[in-house]
Amino acid sequence: MPSHVSHLYCPRCALTYDHRQVQNLCSCGAPLLVDYDLKAIACGVTKAMVAHRPATMWRYREFLPVEEPENIVSLEEGLTPLYSVTQIGEPWGLPDLWLKDDGANPTGSFKARGASCGISRARELGVHTVALPTAGNAGGAWACYGARAGLRVHVAMPQDAPLSNQLECGMYGAELTLVDGLISDAGRLIAQGIQEHGWYDAATLKEPYRIEGKKTLGLEIAEQLGWKMPDAIIYPCGGGVGVIGIWLALQQLRTMGWVEGGLPRLIIAQAEGCAPLVKAFHEGKEVSEFWAGAETFSSGLRVPKALGDFLVLRAIRETGGTAIAIADAMAAQMMSLLARTTGIFAAPEGAATLAAARLLAQQGFLQPQDRVVVINTGTALKYPEAIQEALRQR
Amino acid sequence: MPSHVSHLYCPRCALTYDHRQVQNLCSCGAPLLVDYDLKAIACGVTKAMVAHRPATMWRYREFLPVEEPENIVSLEEGLTPLYSVTQIGEPWGLPDLWLKDDGANPTGSFKARGASCGISRARELGVHTVALPTAGNAGGAWACYGARAGLRVHVAMPQDAPLSNQLECGMYGAELTLVDGLISDAGRLIAQGIQEHGWYDAATLKEPYRIEGKKTLGLEIAEQLGWKMPDAIIYPCGGGVGVIGIWLALQQLRTMGWVEGGLPRLIIAQAEGCAPLVKAFHEGKEVSEFWAGAETFSSGLRVPKALGDFLVLRAIRETGGTAIAIADAMAAQMMSLLARTTGIFAAPEGAATLAAARLLAQQGFLQPQDRVVVINTGTALKYPEAIQEALRQR
Repeated sequence: MPSHVSHLYCPRCALTYDHRQVQNLCSCGAPLLVDYDLKAIACGVTKAMVAHRPATMWRYREFLPVEEPENIVSLEEGLTPLYSVTQIGEPWGLPDLWLKDDGANPTGSFKARGASCGISRARELGVHTVALPTAGNAGGAWACYGARAGLRVHVAMPQDAPLSNQLECGMYGAELTLVDGLISDAGRLIAQGIQEHGWYDAATLKEPYRIEGKKTLGLEIAEQLGWKMPDAIIYPCGGGVGVIGIWLALQQLRTMGWVEGGLPRLIIAQAEGCAPLVKAFHEGKEVSEFWAGAETFSSGLRVPKALGDFLVLRAIRETGGTAIAIADAMAAQMMSLLARTTGIFAAPEGAATLAAARLLAQQGFLQPQDRVVVINTGTALKYPEAIQEALRQR
Repeated sequence: MPSHVSHLYCPRCALTYDHRQVQNLCSCGAPLLVDYDLKAIACGVTKAMVAHRPATMWRYREFLPVEEPENIVSLEEGLTPLYSVTQIGEPWGLPDLWLKDDGANPTGSFKARGASCGISRARELGVHTVALPTAGNAGGAWACYGARAGLRVHVAMPQDAPLSNQLECGMYGAELTLVDGLISDAGRLIAQGIQEHGWYDAATLKEPYRIEGKKTLGLEIAEQLGWKMPDAIIYPCGGGVGVIGIWLALQQLRTMGWVEGGLPRLIIAQAEGCAPLVKAFHEGKEVSEFWAGAETFSSGLRVPKALGDFLVLRAIRETGGTAIAIADAMAAQMMSLLARTTGIFAAPEGAATLAAARLLAQQGFLQPQDRVVVINTGTALKYPEAIQEALRQR
């Protein structure tokens, strides 16, 4: 290393920015993304080299933005299991069904990827205090990696976010504020603190590096499937950083010639009680509208308006994907089915992607020959309330 | 494969048994252990071969009792991180302090190792229904792996075992009975069910294969330290299977010449409110007495009498180790310290081993030049009650 980052760019207005300085949003208000010198990456690393590195997301370090290895803040996140779940998919006409279990990460959720990368880069840029609003899991993850890095962390989350997320923040020594409202209300509070105290804004997509960590989800799926693209990936969409990250990762791999086949159809699952992107997608809109009265037991899906909505919608449309809303009751059923038949203990967000697979197979959108990967974003251990709901429904 | 198991033997009376049949205790009432043809293992596998295998405990399959690979029931357990925690040990005069984080396992605890091996072998032997009493985590793990294998699982646990463990059993479809009492009372109930229904007895050390899974903890520590023995290992001791397993594993590695140095001092930490093995050790006894009124927030340490007590005491004494009781308040402090300084989210049982390290350094039993490994057996996510205790003590 040094990293192969060339610059930051705005995916809306195309302005570019210097990655060697702290940057947040583009002057046009859109998130900034990271661009890499892919030729330099291809010169420095091969698939075989990656295969022999330790089983963490940092095996893809050339695709990540950290300059100096000593700045990496890691708890061995990533390289989570990709399970064949053909026993579940077969009766639905989807025998080639796979589940990526990101609940196996530190902090029990996929948010560890973004926090590991985001905190590493924040430290590298000399940041001392980060602040973010969260629906729950990101707060726990940033508090964790912040503690490991010795940074101060301010978190605001809904007062009815899972107790597990609140306790994580407390144990990691983060400053936690509980808000009578949603992540959007928490966001207003954090923005005020940033204005007053000059904290580093680590809200979803308001700094450019969390998404780079999430990108490793896409890199891993490609490697774990022998560098062959699947036909579809179903992602549970709150803020949408993961699906945008997967989209960017697979494009980079294709440009480099590391992976066979075209991009998979990218599909998002939301909750019926909070489905702004599903609505926007089916109405043909380029951005989503604020979803009033958001309510679902999948706390991570309670995001009424995502800053990166236009990118999520673009990712879905450009890959021929779709968007689907899942009832909580159906997600709860899938949590039970998955546990009882495979031993996988999925968060309700992840379980919703299984429900989506079944519905899309019924509708013919997914076909028996399709290789479909669904993404579980967390462990059910963080959701005792959702488990109790699932057990009531038996 | 086939496995390199030669036979089962009784470590008390030396009787031997055929491993190709279902076996439980020796006729003398002691647990049976597994013996291997170590020469055959050494012929078939090298350290370099192991290093290139996937990062799960099944990379040590030659040291494990399963005959046919298709019988392995796995969720990618094992190969958990071994963290340097010098920042914690340094002020105590223990700069070479390490923490093995077994909370990174499926089901969030080290019990996944024993369940993966035990369920695999039970399936291989044609068992359909397993039954076990548990302090909590073993119930969740056996329910999980049982579900994955398609076996029926009966679990009995104290009614005040952590809610997380009760919910796991429910979600995995195990038959759960809550008992007004301790694991010993749950044990009586399960023994009755076994008598009546002919279930397979999977209680701690009542079948010979759970301990083989736990053995991989020792194999991993050796590999992760570059095949050099540490000077001491501190283990939080409930039933004691892990520490016996580590002892057996390191002996096997030494016999094979795979590892440099003598056996580490094996040290156990128990809770002040339930310390039968600490008492027996310091009184010079060969077995422990039933500990009346066991009480600690470390649910995994609420084991008033361990079937393998004589083996634990032998392991400690033969290696020059010791045994120490830790107050819950001190374990709670260590949970906080660990989270805030390293990002590691340890169960109270694991945190107790850190407290033990500090006390033993103060007493001079551990010295600054010692390489000391403490074992965290679970994730704090399963212990919201203990976290709340830790937060109250700030």
